[in-house]
Amino acid sequence: MLEPLEQDVNRRIVLNARPVGGAKETDFRLETQAVPQAGQGQLLVHNHFLSVDPYMRGMMSDRKSYVEPIALGAPMAGLTVGQVVESRHDGFSSGDWVVTNGHWQDYSLVDDAQTWKLAAGLERKSLALGVLGMPGLTAWAGLRLIGKPQAGETLVVAAATGPVGSMVGQLARKMGLRAVGVAGGPEKCRIAVERLGFDACLDHRAPDFEAQLSAAVPDGIDIYFENVGGRVLRAVVPLLNQRARIPLCGTIVTYDDPDRPNDTLPDHTDIIMSRLQQQRVLVQGFLVGDYFHQWGEFLQEVGPWVEAGEISFIEDIVAGLENAPSALIDVINGRNFGKKIVSLRD
Amino acid sequence: MLEPLEQDVNRRIVLNARPVGGAKETDFRLETQAVPQAGQGQLLVHNHFLSVDPYMRGMMSDRKSYVEPIALGAPMAGLTVGQVVESRHDGFSSGDWVVTNGHWQDYSLVDDAQTWKLAAGLERKSLALGVLGMPGLTAWAGLRLIGKPQAGETLVVAAATGPVGSMVGQLARKMGLRAVGVAGGPEKCRIAVERLGFDACLDHRAPDFEAQLSAAVPDGIDIYFENVGGRVLRAVVPLLNQRARIPLCGTIVTYDDPDRPNDTLPDHTDIIMSRLQQQRVLVQGFLVGDYFHQWGEFLQEVGPWVEAGEISFIEDIVAGLENAPSALIDVINGRNFGKKIVSLRD
Repeated sequence: MLEPLEQDVNRRIVLNARPVGGAKETDFRLETQAVPQAGQGQLLVHNHFLSVDPYMRGMMSDRKSYVEPIALGAPMAGLTVGQVVESRHDGFSSGDWVVTNGHWQDYSLVDDAQTWKLAAGLERKSLALGVLGMPGLTAWAGLRLIGKPQAGETLVVAAATGPVGSMVGQLARKMGLRAVGVAGGPEKCRIAVERLGFDACLDHRAPDFEAQLSAAVPDGIDIYFENVGGRVLRAVVPLLNQRARIPLCGTIVTYDDPDRPNDTLPDHTDIIMSRLQQQRVLVQGFLVGDYFHQWGEFLQEVGPWVEAGEISFIEDIVAGLENAPSALIDVINGRNFGKKIVSLRD
Repeated sequence: MLEPLEQDVNRRIVLNARPVGGAKETDFRLETQAVPQAGQGQLLVHNHFLSVDPYMRGMMSDRKSYVEPIALGAPMAGLTVGQVVESRHDGFSSGDWVVTNGHWQDYSLVDDAQTWKLAAGLERKSLALGVLGMPGLTAWAGLRLIGKPQAGETLVVAAATGPVGSMVGQLARKMGLRAVGVAGGPEKCRIAVERLGFDACLDHRAPDFEAQLSAAVPDGIDIYFENVGGRVLRAVVPLLNQRARIPLCGTIVTYDDPDRPNDTLPDHTDIIMSRLQQQRVLVQGFLVGDYFHQWGEFLQEVGPWVEAGEISFIEDIVAGLENAPSALIDVINGRNFGKKIVSLRD
């Protein structure tokens, strides 16, 4: 089944230039090299799927952040699902399916530090990058552990058809909450309601978005899972109930230029903080890595729902490593539809 | 000792008009009425001291908030320290000293719902409005229960000579933290260091305030006790350490107009939220009333320090009920120096 390594090459995409403002295709470069060989304690993984996520934009800048900047000329980081083709580690065998920090390339040399085996029964391997992977854990940890949902409460989440937002909304419904999504455009909103089961979903581009949101949460908002910032946050804040919780997962609106205030608006910081104080709101910034030790708990609650088909997933799969840069640019600009994945072999 | 009631009158200050923008003296009106008599279960309290606090500005507006709006023509609310002159309640006797929600007046009819006896040994009665009263509890609850301080960490608090800020800084020092204050003007900063024991105090009006703050926190900021907002918040956010905590007590910059964004600046909301996420910061809005059930725990920790003279307090006492309106306007505009109190009898 496995390809003869000696006839293959390793294609990889490296950081060609640091983006100025929005990332563009010329900030990336495709290189080819020989397939490496595993050293002691290492695995050689043949990657089948590459996860494309908004946080990758941050690593392209030379700026202190929770993700380390990628060096110019180094391969882009990212999770992959692949099959072990050579193992010099006792815990893994040739043929094992793993999730690993494989970078944007066909073959990865990795150790066991950030490599996990896939559940034996998982037919659809790409789910290990989505509902049962990091986006799933992100949604579950933010909602369950920070949001502390109570049945009957109301949740709002943006990017409702994205990998995290779609999971947040579906998990909230499972936990007995009213789930209101926000998305860009009527088609995404339709999908969020019809396919993902949101109670309502609103288009943040609508001129009367704020009024629509207010009407969609007659009992106010108890949990706002924050993953976008911008207009959605400003609309949510006046509707927060006493003791509301905001799991703070990201603010995608700032990814291209995280130091520049938005000069199209007056400063809302103080009136927002004032409201958070008056409503006694909790805001907790978090990273999914903080919850890796709770993978088991996550899979125990969510795994059966996925197996039973009670959690829908939307995958947006693009073929070919060479298309990974444009896939990332699409994700940053909200042009993906569901979990963006690059398929490396077909 | 007690004055003959039948010869006395009750002066009180009522809300004359809702402020437009900043509160002004004509928004208040002094009235005189007969001294009332206690009904069953009531106390008549002769007030000696009235506490003047920033939150009172919020009550003057007809706007949903954590404080109920005061009706036009009704007396201004506020805590007083006074002596019971008539008791028709089994738990209190004539002569008892109490803290109560006595409003801005000489005599108050109250029940036991918001009335507490002063500790028997408390010589300086006005402290029950300051270091051993609400401001003290506010400081302690925010710092101890939300901030969860660890010895060796760095704390920043603004309004460092104010009743809450001065207490936060001194408690932080007691708990082994580096305490950096922020205040308006060099004189307040000098007092904060020399009299209150802050490790450093910076003038937020200085042109290079941001650089001064950065230099004063070489190990970053672990706890920012937020009571002002504005420029101080914007300067603090880039200096926050991983897993920093922000007890969110108020944003005095917004009190005059809590719905209007600051149009002298571009919107910083998203870049601030982004930073809070990356640093995994906790923000928790709170009201002192949430911690009334922990008065005992507060007094147990802080009382001995005050008795031993290890906690300094600064009182800014103004004589005469008629001066209460200008006292409040001063407090809102940062022109008080320490805990503002109106003395009603001298």
